[in-house]
Amino acid sequence: MNREHTDRQYGAQLRELRQRLLLMAGRVEQMISRSVEALVTRDADLAQSTIELDRQVNRDEIETDRLCLVILARWQPMASDLRFITLALKMVTDLERIGDLAVNICERAVDLAADPPLKPYIDIPRMAVIVQTMIHDAVDAFVANNAELAREVIDRDDEVDALYRRVFAELLRIMRADEEKVESGVKVQAVAKLLERMADHGTNLAEQVIFMVHGEDVRHAGKLGKQ
Amino acid sequence: MNREHTDRQYGAQLRELRQRLLLMAGRVEQMISRSVEALVTRDADLAQSTIELDRQVNRDEIETDRLCLVILARWQPMASDLRFITLALKMVTDLERIGDLAVNICERAVDLAADPPLKPYIDIPRMAVIVQTMIHDAVDAFVANNAELAREVIDRDDEVDALYRRVFAELLRIMRADEEKVESGVKVQAVAKLLERMADHGTNLAEQVIFMVHGEDVRHAGKLGKQ
Repeated sequence: MNREHTDRQYGAQLRELRQRLLLMAGRVEQMISRSVEALVTRDADLAQSTIELDRQVNRDEIETDRLCLVILARWQPMASDLRFITLALKMVTDLERIGDLAVNICERAVDLAADPPLKPYIDIPRMAVIVQTMIHDAVDAFVANNAELAREVIDRDDEVDALYRRVFAELLRIMRADEEKVESGVKVQAVAKLLERMADHGTNLAEQVIFMVHGEDVRHAGKLGKQ
Repeated sequence: MNREHTDRQYGAQLRELRQRLLLMAGRVEQMISRSVEALVTRDADLAQSTIELDRQVNRDEIETDRLCLVILARWQPMASDLRFITLALKMVTDLERIGDLAVNICERAVDLAADPPLKPYIDIPRMAVIVQTMIHDAVDAFVANNAELAREVIDRDDEVDALYRRVFAELLRIMRADEEKVESGVKVQAVAKLLERMADHGTNLAEQVIFMVHGEDVRHAGKLGKQ
């Protein structure tokens, strides 16, 4: 293998890693939107099929981990590439967890589809849309090395927290007025909590990106090294 | 209902909540130690039975959430009780996640039991012991309102990070020396990553305790504010 060939192989593996991260993030976003759609439309089948998507997300984590370690073992990358790869290992864990949380929403959706409706869902779908955007942008920021975009993600966490507090307060009012509604109220509260937790993971992702970019300012410039 | 009777019922529900949190934490600690024991002793049966414990942990979360909401709806608690209950809602989410991570370790343990051993496990069981102590102490600190103990938990996260880096570096050396070992190396790395992630949740728990104890004068009643 000559040097040029080696560089090309290395560059191809880094590109594959980026691609995998984007694909995995896309799948997780889809899980979020479907899980909340299943909740809102009381569609237990959609919830079930969304739960099945999680298997692929779990495989995504394992395969991305594998690719990261192969790159690290084979090419011994330095500086910004090393930082990118070690953070990719952390990012996929957050993404995989978000997928698990979407599964939990689906489970609650199946449960709630059997209960009489408590009230129309308004803030929960809003939370889901913001969370999806957070994850999308955090992963985009990671792949594009964009700290500015990552910072916007962190700001949006406050919106999710505010919506969560509103949902929570409203549910308490409903439950106080009618103790019969405590059971369903607990389940809806759980969904809001799961979305709020997803937003925490989104914030986590974004913080990692900022850390990565700032480490780079101090050290050296070239985007992904030899590519 | 006279006032005294009401107070007694309310007190009993708060005690039940504390008790439930301690029980749930105990179960999660047990899952951690068993998952790593299953890994070290290559015992796929132990891994399977540990995975089954997770169902009870999931029920713990749902039942504790329910109890929190019933207390909030029925008694409209104020100040420190309100803060305790709203944080309990967050704590059980962390505990439930840690249980999920232990399930993931069990799955890797089953997988690795079928592979030829890579090397004796030394730092991974050490990580597990520290993580268990972190979770134990964080929940104790929560129930006892002890910020000092919570701070010790946060300090221990650095030990876990250091062990993780050591495991990671050693695995890379093994994989560099022998590409045949990449497959098992990836799985062992995943276990170390899961333990490191558990320690993050332990830190999360401890930070919430410190916020609860110190937030008293600084802010309103925790994240959920005045319901």
